[in-house]
Amino acid sequence: MKSLDTEILSVGTELLLGHVTNTDARDISELLSRIGVNVRWHTVVGDNPVRLRESVEIARARADVIVTTGGLGPTCDDLTKKVLAEAFALPLVRDQAEYDGLYDFLSLGRVFTPNNYAQADLPEGCTVFHNDWGTAPGCAFEAAGKHVIMMPGPPNECVPMFKKYAIPYLRRLSDEQIVSHSLRIFGMGESTVDQIFRDEMNAMANPSMAPYAKECDCLLQVTAKAKSEAEAEAMIRPVMEHAREKLGDVVYGEDVETLEEAVMELLKRRPATFAAAESCTGGDIARRFTELPGASAFFLGGVVSYTNGVKAGVLGIDPALIEEKGAVSREVAEKMAERVRALTGAELGLGVTGLAGPDGDGVHEVGTVFVSMADAERTWVRELRLGTFRTRGFIRHMAGNHAFDMLRRYLTGLEIEPE
Amino acid sequence: MKSLDTEILSVGTELLLGHVTNTDARDISELLSRIGVNVRWHTVVGDNPVRLRESVEIARARADVIVTTGGLGPTCDDLTKKVLAEAFALPLVRDQAEYDGLYDFLSLGRVFTPNNYAQADLPEGCTVFHNDWGTAPGCAFEAAGKHVIMMPGPPNECVPMFKKYAIPYLRRLSDEQIVSHSLRIFGMGESTVDQIFRDEMNAMANPSMAPYAKECDCLLQVTAKAKSEAEAEAMIRPVMEHAREKLGDVVYGEDVETLEEAVMELLKRRPATFAAAESCTGGDIARRFTELPGASAFFLGGVVSYTNGVKAGVLGIDPALIEEKGAVSREVAEKMAERVRALTGAELGLGVTGLAGPDGDGVHEVGTVFVSMADAERTWVRELRLGTFRTRGFIRHMAGNHAFDMLRRYLTGLEIEPE
Repeated sequence: MKSLDTEILSVGTELLLGHVTNTDARDISELLSRIGVNVRWHTVVGDNPVRLRESVEIARARADVIVTTGGLGPTCDDLTKKVLAEAFALPLVRDQAEYDGLYDFLSLGRVFTPNNYAQADLPEGCTVFHNDWGTAPGCAFEAAGKHVIMMPGPPNECVPMFKKYAIPYLRRLSDEQIVSHSLRIFGMGESTVDQIFRDEMNAMANPSMAPYAKECDCLLQVTAKAKSEAEAEAMIRPVMEHAREKLGDVVYGEDVETLEEAVMELLKRRPATFAAAESCTGGDIARRFTELPGASAFFLGGVVSYTNGVKAGVLGIDPALIEEKGAVSREVAEKMAERVRALTGAELGLGVTGLAGPDGDGVHEVGTVFVSMADAERTWVRELRLGTFRTRGFIRHMAGNHAFDMLRRYLTGLEIEPE
Repeated sequence: MKSLDTEILSVGTELLLGHVTNTDARDISELLSRIGVNVRWHTVVGDNPVRLRESVEIARARADVIVTTGGLGPTCDDLTKKVLAEAFALPLVRDQAEYDGLYDFLSLGRVFTPNNYAQADLPEGCTVFHNDWGTAPGCAFEAAGKHVIMMPGPPNECVPMFKKYAIPYLRRLSDEQIVSHSLRIFGMGESTVDQIFRDEMNAMANPSMAPYAKECDCLLQVTAKAKSEAEAEAMIRPVMEHAREKLGDVVYGEDVETLEEAVMELLKRRPATFAAAESCTGGDIARRFTELPGASAFFLGGVVSYTNGVKAGVLGIDPALIEEKGAVSREVAEKMAERVRALTGAELGLGVTGLAGPDGDGVHEVGTVFVSMADAERTWVRELRLGTFRTRGFIRHMAGNHAFDMLRRYLTGLEIEPE
């Protein structure tokens, strides 16, 4: 796919009212960037046929591929499908397999309206994308030299369907295959990564490398084009190995999304269990890890010790120590990790205490956080200054990243304490 | 502001690569909808002057107001400012106050490049929006019959600046003032709200009412136009009171964003404290509440009892009870709420146990959750079926909403148990 300039056209008044975030556009963009498709524009319009049609005209004039999200299904009267079919002069014809599927589903006591069955009417000659996660099918067609892909709006339907159907569909459009992988990095900034590879990046064309910043970490993306996926993969491998070597132990994973995902893989391999005592992160470490299915085999539980009473009463930390050193201190962080480990019987304990702001405590600056980890023999602590100008959300997320990074380093036999 | 059709034009390649979510567009849209400005389009383009210029031309042809986000500041070479100034044929001129401010800031040991000072160069005749949250100022100007507002990209700068400067700027453009408030609703669906008010909504013009669905709750927005804000407010009041009365106790707040915010207000008023024992929500209740600054005065702490060992060992629930009734049961939920209350000394205890999926336990269907609340005398339980087709994230968030809803109902003297 040499240069399939792509526009993502999202349809939904709820997006323009700010009631819903356009995560579909983000997720589709990320999936497309991995196969080398250039997303050049995101557009959002409301459930309005005139403005939608105008936006379709703009998109077809500038893009090779138009991906629509939303505006399918009975509640929005299949607006997107009707407008796109009209714009490309394709009649809507009933797809018998989709109709039969809808019939079976709707007869299970659901509402029974012609509107519902209209979901089975699709642009003539399109490739149907069956929806295993909801009722409205998606589809793709080529017309007037453009490719149109239509996806339902709900993210839990749109994203898995895009992966399952749209990505292979787009791959088939070209005999040139683009493959991209990324190394996720914690503990080194994007600008440092950029400096390390600057000369090489300038000298490289295929594969190519590019660093990107995320909110609390960064990544290095490596992309290769070849005649086949396998060939592109083979070209990428040595570059990835070389980059891993140069970057060293700040790389926490390949093609993973989060530090906790990387930790989950390491815990499975060992296997090991952990528990967390959280003060300023307020349960966010537990929440992040337990968002991963299967977490219960490795995360035994935690204590959110948001007050000194809970630090003493539930965790059993000596109130005199809290009094002497302060709730935000190295010593209390250590005890939190040690005590939650003992309480739960986990192999490893985490403890986090700090000031997430916006108010200070008169002693530490906002963003001061102590993150600790304990095993049966030793306790480690990182003392962090996460910045007074940062938001509460940033400080909490970054503190959690450090906690997961300490687990990761422990589980891979790396040095743990220095940031 | 009769019909200021508005386009939000966000600039940033990181958005098109899916590395960042466009929360600015969402937040600005929500703020604009409250003052009756119609956001008709969101557009995202990369850091590319040609495509940005093309998008500006499209926007000026169809919109009255263009709000740009991103592409200001030294790292992006002030791309947005340059392209917009050129498109509207305005020279960039140095703003002395901004220059002096930058000089003071940058002399504090920061990097000292001409690029940095270029942030003080702004379109001639514009209204300068000083940035208290970062270095790049925003601005607004009127040219060729259009209004342009430029905001920096980082959400922690963009959103507070938009509230502080752009909203009053837009209000001043019109002698007609639009004011909007919303009632947030939990325990009744958008379609039921729609049915209740259908006839009235059809008969009303000013003020007007409209229900909207959010992922785990819904809202009723009431909007009025008048010559002044005060007059619009006065028109809205009786409609809000009427709607509150008709909706009854499913209304959890006015102009609040979340159930936990409503609970925080009620806890402050009483005052009271609570604690939470969480199994399937995995710390999400604690995390959500402690995202609110000042949470520590009301939330004493919690236990994430993700395993039976922690339910027994930390919470002190009889293992025989867990064995007999199962970890996902009414009885265990009750004990969790009671035990965490006793352990922490809080006035109220919450307990949540259930199956968030994707895997089942062979006994309950995915989405089965028991949410309980205990005070000194009584324990209440809600048994929920949150649906097998829902995502893990939805089930966890909905279970948390029920827990906060039980607190809210307790604190306002309403019946607690029925959903």
